[in-house]
Amino acid sequence: MNHVYFLTPGPSQLYYTVPQHIKTALKEHICSISHRSKSFQQIVAHALEHLRALFQLPTDYYIAFTASATEVWERAIENLSQEYTLHLVNGNFSKKFYEFSKQLKRNAQKWEVSPGKGFYLSEMPPFDPPELLCLTHNETSTGVTMPLEDIYTLRKRYPEALIIVDAVSSVPYPEIDFSQIDSLFFSVQKGFGLPAGLGVWIFNQRCLAKAEELLSKGKSIGTYHSLPSLLASIQKNETPETPNVLGIYLLGKVAEDMNRRGIKTIRQEIEAKAAIAYHHLQKNNDKFSLFVNDPSHRSATVIVAEVLHRPAADFIEFCKQKGIVLGSGYGNFKGVHIRIANFPTHAKETFQHLADLMAQW
Amino acid sequence: MNHVYFLTPGPSQLYYTVPQHIKTALKEHICSISHRSKSFQQIVAHALEHLRALFQLPTDYYIAFTASATEVWERAIENLSQEYTLHLVNGNFSKKFYEFSKQLKRNAQKWEVSPGKGFYLSEMPPFDPPELLCLTHNETSTGVTMPLEDIYTLRKRYPEALIIVDAVSSVPYPEIDFSQIDSLFFSVQKGFGLPAGLGVWIFNQRCLAKAEELLSKGKSIGTYHSLPSLLASIQKNETPETPNVLGIYLLGKVAEDMNRRGIKTIRQEIEAKAAIAYHHLQKNNDKFSLFVNDPSHRSATVIVAEVLHRPAADFIEFCKQKGIVLGSGYGNFKGVHIRIANFPTHAKETFQHLADLMAQW
Repeated sequence: MNHVYFLTPGPSQLYYTVPQHIKTALKEHICSISHRSKSFQQIVAHALEHLRALFQLPTDYYIAFTASATEVWERAIENLSQEYTLHLVNGNFSKKFYEFSKQLKRNAQKWEVSPGKGFYLSEMPPFDPPELLCLTHNETSTGVTMPLEDIYTLRKRYPEALIIVDAVSSVPYPEIDFSQIDSLFFSVQKGFGLPAGLGVWIFNQRCLAKAEELLSKGKSIGTYHSLPSLLASIQKNETPETPNVLGIYLLGKVAEDMNRRGIKTIRQEIEAKAAIAYHHLQKNNDKFSLFVNDPSHRSATVIVAEVLHRPAADFIEFCKQKGIVLGSGYGNFKGVHIRIANFPTHAKETFQHLADLMAQW
Repeated sequence: MNHVYFLTPGPSQLYYTVPQHIKTALKEHICSISHRSKSFQQIVAHALEHLRALFQLPTDYYIAFTASATEVWERAIENLSQEYTLHLVNGNFSKKFYEFSKQLKRNAQKWEVSPGKGFYLSEMPPFDPPELLCLTHNETSTGVTMPLEDIYTLRKRYPEALIIVDAVSSVPYPEIDFSQIDSLFFSVQKGFGLPAGLGVWIFNQRCLAKAEELLSKGKSIGTYHSLPSLLASIQKNETPETPNVLGIYLLGKVAEDMNRRGIKTIRQEIEAKAAIAYHHLQKNNDKFSLFVNDPSHRSATVIVAEVLHRPAADFIEFCKQKGIVLGSGYGNFKGVHIRIANFPTHAKETFQHLADLMAQW
């Protein structure tokens, strides 16, 4: 099963430098060192430094590690809301974030639109200002993105709310103005091309103040992965628990590699590959139909199309035979959709090859 | 930094087959496959099969994956208690388990003895029967073990309580009669010699019934990693979130390797190595003093000694120069203790070398 390229929306193709970094990690005993040692602290410091540079993160924003983005859904609701969260829902993942809030006994409200649709803020129903506004930058199940300008508009509309952005399948692509949001999180097996099992949670002082307010009111905000606990550890370049040390090491290495390549270049490459995919899906409109109608809501990093007349599995199998693994549709769309991931590790040549396959099929 | 042996109590030396399994995993694209694919389900099924064999687990006990053992402390309290937990505390880790319960607003009671001491059940103060009795089989910070017979005695004393055993630094060594406990958990970076970032949680039907009872009473038991959610996924050989796929793959491979070697052999080897370490620490009693006085409370897998007259760091550095990395003391004992891990991957020859170093120093 060599020479296979995974254009799957996560887990996905490993970033091309990862196998070499893993070999180095084994040689340097990264998996055996103590998580309370200077060596480990240096690994954390290195990862934080390169993530900060990659995101051009303001100094008053913190970074902490969790086990997954799924975990952050839970921790964010526990730490950043006492009663009322508001969710923009347009697919399975934004919906799960909303459902977590209900499971945690919050008054969770949602503005829901159909899968494949984006949000037109002029049509937003009236909601009381929430404590926590939960946005999904890129709905991985359907390939719908939320334009950054819309996030900034919501900031103006709800200045008191904490705004948290699920950027799981879009980072490091979007050039986010962090001063317009309070928190952002992602997992590493998508845009960063790393083995799964690590989440990254970025948050600011307002988030911390909210968690501490809940704590002072006698509310439970969890234990080792509460914001105050995460922060106390990360300020020592540590983690509360023994974490996925190899994952943190690899994340630092890949963030460094990406910084060396340049985030501007990476963004341009992603846009060029997205243009190829969207162009050829539309060119082959006898076989494919884009799932997201409004071009401004089409994701650059997860491209979703309906396969016409034939089962999506046929095209997926055809591509697999040629060495490209595509994502199948999510949930109800499993038999009908293809999902094409467009992450930094994916080569333009692979997209050109995929375009040829669209024509040939 | 090659030819170094990590006798550290976790993270520790990788199990000797792990580097090769990682190479195979990379070749077979284990880190890129979908966590909703048949390939992933096979990886999970394989890991479960070999863990069940290794633990000789009764069929009515389930296995689920978390990110760490630390996580299980939290999830267990959330899912297995409404009000009252009882903890046997004799070191930093058993104490943290107790503190988690307080942070989660339970009425957490403890029977605490000094670090380095074990529990004599005849001296146990009277406690109301708890919902959840939290035991630490092997206190990693001090090298104190709890004889299995004592656990079984507590079962008779508190038949209504759920009994959960933290076996983080002892598995797969103890031959536990699972019918005498309800739950057991560990992380993989110790006895299994795997990269950190994965926890294993074993639980029975009584645990599940308790979680469902709490749920039916409208209590929050968390979200994706509640017991019912974990179980619903694992019964499909899946996990609720995108997990540490590589970790699960490696765990299955190492459990298979251990089954091939034979758990009986592994246990005998651990006992033989423990005998070497304890014998030579006592033989060099001008330099070392065993921290655990009662032989029946001395751990076979984490051996702790006080270093006499000189800083512990001197002996640790001496051993490091000779290619053996020892654990330093935990917490307040950092400057005074050495901790020697004795896991399945550690060779008898390394222990003999360590014995020589004790004499030479």
